[in-house]
Amino acid sequence: MRRHLAAAIATTLALATAPTFAAQDKPTPSAKELLDASKPSEWRTPDPDNLLYMQLPTGRVVIELAPDFTPLHAANIRTLVREHYFDGTSVNRVQDNFVAQWDDPASDDDHPDPAKLKSLGKAKKTLPPEYTRAIDAKLPWTELPDGDVYAPEVGFSEGFAAARDPATSRMWLTHCYGAVGVARDISPDSGNGSSLYAIIGQSPRTLDRNLAIAGRVLEGMPLLSALPRGPAPMGFYTDAKQRLPILSVRLASDLPPAQRANIQVLRTDSTTFTALIEAKRNRRDSFYTLPAGKLELCNIDVPVRDGGKPVMP
Amino acid sequence: MRRHLAAAIATTLALATAPTFAAQDKPTPSAKELLDASKPSEWRTPDPDNLLYMQLPTGRVVIELAPDFTPLHAANIRTLVREHYFDGTSVNRVQDNFVAQWDDPASDDDHPDPAKLKSLGKAKKTLPPEYTRAIDAKLPWTELPDGDVYAPEVGFSEGFAAARDPATSRMWLTHCYGAVGVARDISPDSGNGSSLYAIIGQSPRTLDRNLAIAGRVLEGMPLLSALPRGPAPMGFYTDAKQRLPILSVRLASDLPPAQRANIQVLRTDSTTFTALIEAKRNRRDSFYTLPAGKLELCNIDVPVRDGGKPVMP
Repeated sequence: MRRHLAAAIATTLALATAPTFAAQDKPTPSAKELLDASKPSEWRTPDPDNLLYMQLPTGRVVIELAPDFTPLHAANIRTLVREHYFDGTSVNRVQDNFVAQWDDPASDDDHPDPAKLKSLGKAKKTLPPEYTRAIDAKLPWTELPDGDVYAPEVGFSEGFAAARDPATSRMWLTHCYGAVGVARDISPDSGNGSSLYAIIGQSPRTLDRNLAIAGRVLEGMPLLSALPRGPAPMGFYTDAKQRLPILSVRLASDLPPAQRANIQVLRTDSTTFTALIEAKRNRRDSFYTLPAGKLELCNIDVPVRDGGKPVMP
Repeated sequence: MRRHLAAAIATTLALATAPTFAAQDKPTPSAKELLDASKPSEWRTPDPDNLLYMQLPTGRVVIELAPDFTPLHAANIRTLVREHYFDGTSVNRVQDNFVAQWDDPASDDDHPDPAKLKSLGKAKKTLPPEYTRAIDAKLPWTELPDGDVYAPEVGFSEGFAAARDPATSRMWLTHCYGAVGVARDISPDSGNGSSLYAIIGQSPRTLDRNLAIAGRVLEGMPLLSALPRGPAPMGFYTDAKQRLPILSVRLASDLPPAQRANIQVLRTDSTTFTALIEAKRNRRDSFYTLPAGKLELCNIDVPVRDGGKPVMP
């Protein structure tokens, strides 16, 4: 029965106004039922120019870049990847309930020796921040109905959790679980994509609009989220042996099609995605005594499948 | 410089209305500065009758029970602990961005064999749900100013993240990171504290008021949050060898004082706690270009120290 419990916990919500659920009542369709009924046209295959394969000793992390939000960072990261800059770097910092960060280990010294730093090659050393972009009617927008503590409007655009402020006509990607951000130094233009972090805990939305978000992890989050936390302040490892080596990072478009993953992401402007949100907001089943009737931005997973099989969120 | 960056990322926020931070400006005090200046009277030593020490092969997890919110569950868990019920149980389920759950492994079968289940001894098999309790002016309440997607009011009471609904005069603990919940089967009275879970990812607030929260983890979260995720649906392990054994669970009050941890928790009705929240909401320093000016319930850590040393959040 615990598995039954777990299933209910993992997927359930119900109408705040719902009467007690009776045996003869029809439960809200599950995420699996909704996805099984989805149309092929509701799934998109990410552009291979936006897909990064990060090979770790423990497996592969797949990241989708977000060039419509951070185009200069996407371009610089592609340049670094094509130079094999990340090959031989490592995950150097894992802070519990916050981030896993990977970069050139030499850059993590308090006063890095420039002679020891990996060359950025043709990649730019500084970039305009790209923390926000103009709201554009050409970008799809699926708005959530329940509001947000941090932003006037929240929703999804092109598969990414995002926020908007009509007063300034700006929009930006949000630091939800799995978001991949661009680390920087004090100067806002000091982020260049050579140091990246993934959110592995409660979404630190206070970072929104203060750091550029390059994309999000589509597959392999547990390879980052389950890493040993670093013993030093902010989760830095104290011994080079604790660092997880990054064997390689490649762009899907640089690999022969036969070596590419067959990854698809549910369109966040699809009928099925809207139905998933509604089912989670207003789920009715035999488990829940009091439904939330609401749903917060970072509580929503955008479904991904690889080779037709669902990627476990 | 990356450490500088990390420090800023880990602690920063600034006034939404703040002018550009200038070199001569005084930055908002850091969490460390505020805690270093705190008074001894602002820290409380949890009642040893409410402190659980869960000994894992990898270290110790310390959990504080919340008897003012879930008294019957606290009493039943104390009974189970004094019977050494949990000794020899295990963490049987770790679902990425959701929960780590521990209990009698035999109970995780789809149709558990009653003959194989551990005896609950004198502990009750069923309990009233205790999902919410009446608002009581005698309970301290530190309310947050920035609202919440899921509840009319949110804040802290006796060290626990909580929510209130004046319309119903009820309050309840919330499923923030580190909350320890009581797993149950379909029937609301089927939870008894013999199966517990800790939140290890984005707070699944949709569980609020549908499951009893027994308390929260004060120390040792990484021992649960960094565990390998289970390969089966909902993060169940598929092989008994994957399960992490629980060597023992003891109440601090059942140990000689010399064997007890010297744990203190910052009072959430203290001036310093309010100052920490304000500093995080409205932080100003050289790193942040745009402050949030707001702060969400589950983005706030309640400081804990063990032997005078801060417990890393």
